[in-house]
Amino acid sequence: MDLTSVLARWPGVALPLIEAAQSRVAPYVRPTPLAPAPPLRGDLAPHLTLKLENLQVTGSFKARGAFNNLLQLDAAARERGIVAASGGNHGLAVAYAAHRLGLPATIFIPATAAPDRAARIAAWGVRLIQVGESYDEAEAAATRFARDEGLPNIHPFDSDGTLQGTGTLGLELLDDIPDADLVLIAIGGGGLIAGMSAALKQRRPDLRIVGHRGGRRTLHDGQPGSGPRGGLRTIATTLAPRAVSQRTLDLTRACVDEIVLVTDTEMVAAMRWLWAECNQLVEPSGAAVIAALQTGRVDLIGCRRPVALVCGGNAAADPVFDAYASQISD
Amino acid sequence: MDLTSVLARWPGVALPLIEAAQSRVAPYVRPTPLAPAPPLRGDLAPHLTLKLENLQVTGSFKARGAFNNLLQLDAAARERGIVAASGGNHGLAVAYAAHRLGLPATIFIPATAAPDRAARIAAWGVRLIQVGESYDEAEAAATRFARDEGLPNIHPFDSDGTLQGTGTLGLELLDDIPDADLVLIAIGGGGLIAGMSAALKQRRPDLRIVGHRGGRRTLHDGQPGSGPRGGLRTIATTLAPRAVSQRTLDLTRACVDEIVLVTDTEMVAAMRWLWAECNQLVEPSGAAVIAALQTGRVDLIGCRRPVALVCGGNAAADPVFDAYASQISD
Repeated sequence: MDLTSVLARWPGVALPLIEAAQSRVAPYVRPTPLAPAPPLRGDLAPHLTLKLENLQVTGSFKARGAFNNLLQLDAAARERGIVAASGGNHGLAVAYAAHRLGLPATIFIPATAAPDRAARIAAWGVRLIQVGESYDEAEAAATRFARDEGLPNIHPFDSDGTLQGTGTLGLELLDDIPDADLVLIAIGGGGLIAGMSAALKQRRPDLRIVGHRGGRRTLHDGQPGSGPRGGLRTIATTLAPRAVSQRTLDLTRACVDEIVLVTDTEMVAAMRWLWAECNQLVEPSGAAVIAALQTGRVDLIGCRRPVALVCGGNAAADPVFDAYASQISD
Repeated sequence: MDLTSVLARWPGVALPLIEAAQSRVAPYVRPTPLAPAPPLRGDLAPHLTLKLENLQVTGSFKARGAFNNLLQLDAAARERGIVAASGGNHGLAVAYAAHRLGLPATIFIPATAAPDRAARIAAWGVRLIQVGESYDEAEAAATRFARDEGLPNIHPFDSDGTLQGTGTLGLELLDDIPDADLVLIAIGGGGLIAGMSAALKQRRPDLRIVGHRGGRRTLHDGQPGSGPRGGLRTIATTLAPRAVSQRTLDLTRACVDEIVLVTDTEMVAAMRWLWAECNQLVEPSGAAVIAALQTGRVDLIGCRRPVALVCGGNAAADPVFDAYASQISD
């Protein structure tokens, strides 16, 4: 399906709705900076620009969708509160947005989530429920709870409100760099790339978009609702949902020109590179776009203004602080 | 002495010379971004802006002075090369600048320097000599070597070229935020605060400048060339030189309105805060300005546009990458 047909099927990501979302969330999210120029060592791509969405409030792009969803609730719904399930970043974003807007929130995360993520979500004063071995199990529990309590479930990727939110990042990127001719975007549940590339292609149909994901195969080559047996295994847990939605699949197929896979080893090497070049500590999924460039899997020939989106920064950094704390000489 | 008298004594930091340095280094250093707004949790200072100089090339402000010094060498001197001594960041900056400009460089660092700093300096293809227990011993060795070989010794803080370089950061900050009314700056050898505040006060005499340093006393209350017995002990090694120079002492006394001390414990807490609020991993000295605010030692009453300079980001981050590498499932 081409973009026009996809938009007829999913009218919630039409450009005017994304533009409205941009105005709606502006008081609450940060316009994130570009990595300053002259940016990077010449051994990658001397003309590459990084969009540092890891500097977003709560450390990832998820804040955009969270605020866009919560700000559209009516007064009665705000009073009752909301539910969300998350592998980590979406939960943190919804918890922060609920705190800022004064809503009660119940957040479901897997029991296997990193302890620092659980602590950071709980720090915003929400009710945190850790359940299941994976995001999918936490999501199932959240869905039941939301239905039983009659509360809205803020979905991490499969909703118009969430995709409009990620769409605002596409509009912001084009405001920053109007002559961008290639944008590199990580793929997890697909909400980031679906919303962003819908916005980008509606404004700039000629723009080339390349998606990157962890693991050895891509769900976006498959069917909605399905996933490989046992799930994808990768350290970039946010890049490995077991299933995708029809909505993100349709949008990704219509808007994304290529999809490239990166391994864990390549992502860790890319994390080290981002640290050495830019002093930016990011999570593996935030470095996936760099990994794809470093391995030469993205052809930059003829590309004059490539932009790589660093989508999230919530790495597990506690070992650094603990090491410093052990050396204190006060 | 007032600023006019100090500038008569140290004419190398006159405003036109700092402006010339800004043009000179512009092709080689990054204009660093501000922490995006709405920036920070309300429990600190809701109107605070962070200037993220940790995003500078080589991860600290030192790149500005390094390029400004090296770019003023004549062709014969460039051919022969340069010498520098450093606790880490200055050495990294000089090594990178020498690489960019094609100069041979010999860098002296203490044998006690963190292994990752030594590796990062050596990676730029310089001759690296590790000697002595402290910066001062490495500096003494570098001075002898430079004299014996007839090479320029690029001083980390006590030279006009270096102070003009740090001055460019003051000019850039005022270009970013013309209505700044308070600037918070860390103090190590004094080259950062001396050059920056000379630039700031020549452009904006009404601006209030507060300096912050690690440890329990400040060398800038003392005499040039002196230091406490055994040196200052702090995890922020770059904030604890054993001696300061007459030049930085004069400039600091004339330009800096207050000096505040912060402890190691406070700096580690501030590092955690910068990570949680902004996803910026910085070294202890880079967090010193935040520590001073968090402990309430800087009075913000009546201050409408405070700016905190995050001066360096070269924390020891390897434990994070090692932990991820151990979980790879490729």
